[in-house]
Amino acid sequence: MTSTLERFGVNRRVLLAIAMAVATFFGPALPVSSQTQSDFLPSWNDGATKRAITEFVARVTQQGGPEFVPPNERIATFDNDGTLWVEHPMYVQQAFALDRVKAMAPLHPEWQSTQPFKAVLEGDMKTLGAAGERGMAELVMVTHAGMTTGEFQKLVTDWLATARHPRFQRPYTELSYQPMIELLAYLRANGFKTYIVSGGGVEFMRPWTERVYDVPPEQVVGSSIKTRFQMREGRPELFRLPEVNFIDDGPGKPVGINEFIGRRPIAAFGNSDGDLQMLQWTTMSGGARLGLLVHHTDAEREYAYDRDTSFGRLDKALDVAPLNHWVVVDMKNDWKRIFAFE
Amino acid sequence: MTSTLERFGVNRRVLLAIAMAVATFFGPALPVSSQTQSDFLPSWNDGATKRAITEFVARVTQQGGPEFVPPNERIATFDNDGTLWVEHPMYVQQAFALDRVKAMAPLHPEWQSTQPFKAVLEGDMKTLGAAGERGMAELVMVTHAGMTTGEFQKLVTDWLATARHPRFQRPYTELSYQPMIELLAYLRANGFKTYIVSGGGVEFMRPWTERVYDVPPEQVVGSSIKTRFQMREGRPELFRLPEVNFIDDGPGKPVGINEFIGRRPIAAFGNSDGDLQMLQWTTMSGGARLGLLVHHTDAEREYAYDRDTSFGRLDKALDVAPLNHWVVVDMKNDWKRIFAFE
Repeated sequence: MTSTLERFGVNRRVLLAIAMAVATFFGPALPVSSQTQSDFLPSWNDGATKRAITEFVARVTQQGGPEFVPPNERIATFDNDGTLWVEHPMYVQQAFALDRVKAMAPLHPEWQSTQPFKAVLEGDMKTLGAAGERGMAELVMVTHAGMTTGEFQKLVTDWLATARHPRFQRPYTELSYQPMIELLAYLRANGFKTYIVSGGGVEFMRPWTERVYDVPPEQVVGSSIKTRFQMREGRPELFRLPEVNFIDDGPGKPVGINEFIGRRPIAAFGNSDGDLQMLQWTTMSGGARLGLLVHHTDAEREYAYDRDTSFGRLDKALDVAPLNHWVVVDMKNDWKRIFAFE
Repeated sequence: MTSTLERFGVNRRVLLAIAMAVATFFGPALPVSSQTQSDFLPSWNDGATKRAITEFVARVTQQGGPEFVPPNERIATFDNDGTLWVEHPMYVQQAFALDRVKAMAPLHPEWQSTQPFKAVLEGDMKTLGAAGERGMAELVMVTHAGMTTGEFQKLVTDWLATARHPRFQRPYTELSYQPMIELLAYLRANGFKTYIVSGGGVEFMRPWTERVYDVPPEQVVGSSIKTRFQMREGRPELFRLPEVNFIDDGPGKPVGINEFIGRRPIAAFGNSDGDLQMLQWTTMSGGARLGLLVHHTDAEREYAYDRDTSFGRLDKALDVAPLNHWVVVDMKNDWKRIFAFE
């Protein structure tokens, strides 16, 4: 159905955004009923977890309330891998790097006999695993640098259009968690500005986060390599260099938040020890704050892991969660469905 | 006069923003008349410069037009020193650094006999000038590092509340250019997201840009020193280290824009050769683009300088401006008034 408004390029989401913006400005004059509020989270089962979220939002948005936070200070930061989309059996960006090695191999005959490239080309995951972080860093540099930012963006976009997750056999962008997408929209409807703060590469995420999460590129913080400005044939370009610029993980997350956003969040969402410091920085600052960890407890519908995994290890953060009053999402019991396609 | 709406915390600016947002979404259904458009720039004299600005905005906002740019891609970047506020006789941040040296001197008796500190304490600007960039970098590190981000923010805020410009004898924040503040608001009213992209320290700007320019902290890109996350007495903090993290000047500006914003601007505003690459990156990308240089030509009301100055040198960028169709603002003739207090 195409309404008159849609012919002007105005869809329901835009209208809702305008309505909610007006509601935010007018506050109690046009209250959003609690019924409307809970409708934003249909993929969440009713219970303590969902209630902790909606109660927090009610507290910080109640005009004149003791814990009211003005809209411009309602910053919410979300980890990406394992918090907004699947990170097993390996980070999506690593799958991209391995596929790029295979695609580039014809131009690099020496890789047939050089590790860790040989392992990638032979599908020898054991040898690749043994190469550790240093081996993976080498693969990332070779596949992520040595081109312009525009060229890299095209590689990412093209790859995502055809790559499939080995278990679910679907595009990775369909493996985002429906309850979290609802949560992002729910927070925005309540005046929050939602950011991604991920250990993943910022230029690997920006080409698709707006389409998948409704989070625009300028609200994505991530790890990065250095770039150099240069004029080539009379045109300016940014060239990607094989040199680490910033690692947005662990203690790097509060650093990145301060550097890129310049405001302290009042809500933070993660799933691993790499999010520990972000949750500390967010919640240990006085006032109503929300820290939340997604605990992967559903081997049947997704994966079950915490302390004993190399992708998204959740150990220390899980230990300190109760003390800090962080909400721990039990994926199996708190999420009615995990993916939109279910 | 306090209207009913204002009692709900809704002022005219907010209403205007809502109205313009609606107008942006509905496009030609609710056109903004050209009369309304020009009302946004009352401190600009009519003429070719003002017309170049309003015609550019008309082209990129005309729904269905050949050069229409969707609102989410309307990124505009502004240099700060010399473009949005006064940079003579020295950068404001340098005045801050010198005042901090004086304030800290009692705890550093060795500065009485160590350069460049001795020169600062004696007001010996000639020796200080001879110490060059290296000397200034030393002063900046000593005065900007060795404290938490919160402590630094307080120092900046307190200093700006009392410091006065040597010639105008007013707070520096009153020495922002009224025509540029109108231009920022005019662009935002037309769906642009306005950013500051400055060689100045990002944490020196963020405490006051929202109040003075209506540009929130998360839309300020600047130079920075490194910070370290740490827990102290059970509370998280970010500690400022005496180590350069990023210099957002010259070829660093396109790099910073890509890293922090992740979109290519369609309009860029500067006043010196430090803005050359930002204007190249912005305007040399096809489609309707606006590059603008503020040329300081008014010694009577402000300052007159271009090729021969150590603060905000405008030389090469001025040479290539005509070739690139960049607009050059003749401050003396294009600006009806320079400061709000005139």
